[in-house]
Amino acid sequence: MHAETSTGALQPLEEISQIVHEHGALFLVDAVTSLGGTNVDVDGWQIDACYSGSQKCLSCPPGLSPVTFSESATEAIEKRKTKVRSWYLDLSMIRQYWGSERLYHHTAPINMNYALLEALKIVKEEGLENRWKRHLENHLQLKDGLSEIGIEIVSQTGHQLPMLNAIKIPEGASDLNIRQQLLQEFGIEIGGGLGAFKGKIWRIGLMGAASTKGNVLLFLAALKKCLRDQGVKIPA
Amino acid sequence: MHAETSTGALQPLEEISQIVHEHGALFLVDAVTSLGGTNVDVDGWQIDACYSGSQKCLSCPPGLSPVTFSESATEAIEKRKTKVRSWYLDLSMIRQYWGSERLYHHTAPINMNYALLEALKIVKEEGLENRWKRHLENHLQLKDGLSEIGIEIVSQTGHQLPMLNAIKIPEGASDLNIRQQLLQEFGIEIGGGLGAFKGKIWRIGLMGAASTKGNVLLFLAALKKCLRDQGVKIPA
Repeated sequence: MHAETSTGALQPLEEISQIVHEHGALFLVDAVTSLGGTNVDVDGWQIDACYSGSQKCLSCPPGLSPVTFSESATEAIEKRKTKVRSWYLDLSMIRQYWGSERLYHHTAPINMNYALLEALKIVKEEGLENRWKRHLENHLQLKDGLSEIGIEIVSQTGHQLPMLNAIKIPEGASDLNIRQQLLQEFGIEIGGGLGAFKGKIWRIGLMGAASTKGNVLLFLAALKKCLRDQGVKIPA
Repeated sequence: MHAETSTGALQPLEEISQIVHEHGALFLVDAVTSLGGTNVDVDGWQIDACYSGSQKCLSCPPGLSPVTFSESATEAIEKRKTKVRSWYLDLSMIRQYWGSERLYHHTAPINMNYALLEALKIVKEEGLENRWKRHLENHLQLKDGLSEIGIEIVSQTGHQLPMLNAIKIPEGASDLNIRQQLLQEFGIEIGGGLGAFKGKIWRIGLMGAASTKGNVLLFLAALKKCLRDQGVKIPA
């Protein structure tokens, strides 16, 4: 998983890929949250199978999953000897549908295809590298603002996600009450922690069109107000 | 398959259901083409699992598949001992997502959900039984018009689909050339035959919003012109 949203960690795919390939395995990457928000160098990092989603940093409605496969992955699909159990993700059939044979596999969700095309055009207008830069800058601005009131990012420095900020809940603050006030008073929804992080962290998304300086400033001001309203002591 | 589109046959589900249940089996029905165009009496016919599509007689964009399960089917899912191979259609997980537990399974294609809601509202405005009647009437009008120029429906009388008319290609007519002229001159696309029917039948859809008297008349006039243009003898 490239951008791990439960911990806010950006995984070092290049290093992982090296280990994977040294052992003759194929490298499968979930780039659902990273694509469009940070570099996903599929070929450079020798990713064999990679999938993403339309609804995160591409800012398209949900419903499609862009996928790509390396030659090694394609070969593995071709050489497969056991029957594919799923019609839905029978890639040998989907290949023939997408390929020159045009063998019917499914009715495409055509409105979603046009939505994704438009979303990708918007990405291209901004420029892919400008988009990565924007996500990074807004993340850094949020990080600075939080650090001023003593709130830290939980993931390791150098591996912090630009589009999903996992932060420590400050001492004395109620997880649910603060999230509720943020939602009711400001229409801002942030995520709670999962598993071992439940009640200990918040997760703040700054993805695609939502990653703006304005949103960062609004969130910082709103969070401060909620914390003060609920009696949590933070620096002036 | 309730509405079998390669042959234009409406299957007698009530009779099939009886045989299936006499043998203690579960009854799975594909209602992709029939739902919204003719009666699909899921409970009355004791269908245990039924699925459809949004894009046929419901006239919604493609991308969703309405499904329903009987108590027996639900029980079979619950008692299943082998691991489900597909995340996508792991109904035990999807049940928990749709149920009161709200256990996360997938990001819903929310725009499609609203599209289906709107399509169903339109169905309700017309009235479900009025809609079946409209599909039937337009099918009968097409059948009459074709019979006047000696063209017959291939499926058995009493089992002919109202929304998909499979008709015999008249002697002397070129399958491809007639279809091409219909498309180029009138923007009308009809389907060719599949398998044993390839080159022998045409398939004319009259589904959902497209099932109108106007479309029937336009198609009949256009087909006559194409046949005459290409030297096929038909009654005046």
